Amino acid sequence: MEELEATERTRLRRLPRRGSFDRDTINAIIDQALFCHIGFVHQGSPFVIPTLHVRIGDRIYVHGSAASRMLRAAAEGIPLCATITHIDGLVLARSAFHHSVNYRSVVIVGTGHEVADQKEKNRVLEALVEHIVPGRWREVRPPAPKELAATSVIGMPITEASAKIRSGNAIDDEEDYALPVWAGVIPLRTVAEAAIADERVPGSVAMPRYVAEYLPPSARWNDNGKAD
Amino acid sequence: MEELEATERTRLRRLPRRGSFDRDTINAIIDQALFCHIGFVHQGSPFVIPTLHVRIGDRIYVHGSAASRMLRAAAEGIPLCATITHIDGLVLARSAFHHSVNYRSVVIVGTGHEVADQKEKNRVLEALVEHIVPGRWREVRPPAPKELAATSVIGMPITEASAKIRSGNAIDDEEDYALPVWAGVIPLRTVAEAAIADERVPGSVAMPRYVAEYLPPSARWNDNGKAD
Repeated sequence: MEELEATERTRLRRLPRRGSFDRDTINAIIDQALFCHIGFVHQGSPFVIPTLHVRIGDRIYVHGSAASRMLRAAAEGIPLCATITHIDGLVLARSAFHHSVNYRSVVIVGTGHEVADQKEKNRVLEALVEHIVPGRWREVRPPAPKELAATSVIGMPITEASAKIRSGNAIDDEEDYALPVWAGVIPLRTVAEAAIADERVPGSVAMPRYVAEYLPPSARWNDNGKAD
Repeated sequence: MEELEATERTRLRRLPRRGSFDRDTINAIIDQALFCHIGFVHQGSPFVIPTLHVRIGDRIYVHGSAASRMLRAAAEGIPLCATITHIDGLVLARSAFHHSVNYRSVVIVGTGHEVADQKEKNRVLEALVEHIVPGRWREVRPPAPKELAATSVIGMPITEASAKIRSGNAIDDEEDYALPVWAGVIPLRTVAEAAIADERVPGSVAMPRYVAEYLPPSARWNDNGKAD
């Protein structure tokens, strides 16, 4: 169990008992998500943009158009914040005040670096596609050199990062437990519905099994916390 | 149909055809989400924090502990960015490059103001609870004065905001349509699972119907874009 070092930027000021600096905990929260929100500062204003991500080892990667303002800024090494959030359930308490949400989130702060090497870029894009739809990469036409050139890939080390987790029932004030109010948790999850074929797919091309049986990353893990 | 004015901060530089400044479109994306990601700048670094939200009229509200660093900073009127994201589906193309995601997102930039008036604070908290679990507020113990005092509520006008939407199939390069590769969309959605009662709920207290039949905000809308 490797613990990341808490820094001034990642130290948990509020409810530190919900926090974790354990790398495996942080990695699992990242890996079970399809996308993150990236924060950056432009002319003094914060901007937050959703984007797909993949983790490879101790780095998180995002990609996009080489023309994207956010990715160009990120490539220049400005400070970034990548936040990943799972809302696992709604926590209903006897009092309005103690209502809460069960969640798992990770905040990573640092600076990005551009992946310029074409081979490494291709490898990250493969990992990204395989993270989102396992089995997909080998079936599709790989990126052409001009497509790779039009794509920016930004990596960020997962060094300054912390996780925050809440689970379980509400903690009500002791006297409120006597109230005749239902309390508990409404679990939430992300599911995939039946895939819809593009009408231009030839009739001879069947839906692949990895599409028909698709599970989003959050559903790919068994009770031992490992992918099935 | 009211259009918000595009500003230097909300003008869509990338793929403006996916963008919208229509207030009804923006409001629907906000209302169908449980939570947003708030970005703010602290000592030059961006931070992105997930939090529940509710919209009332032309404002979005978030809340939290009065001790929260983010909320204290927001109350002081520093620039904020609130981003709401729905991932509606995975878009599988014939080429790796044209893979995409169907999504609806809203980015709101501006500055927050603290809701100090206790009555207004209570009204926002009621709207927040009702947004998340409709029917809940009237059943629970309302906030005590000291609970209201321990809660910060921040409002932000939805004035500088834009929506971005992608839907439909991949747009592949014309020559790739001949490839024997399945293409299409895997729809994703958030669902509620069966609620789990807190074991300390008295046996005489039944699960309310609004819990047993709970729908998250994203599932509360019919095909006409209105709540059922």
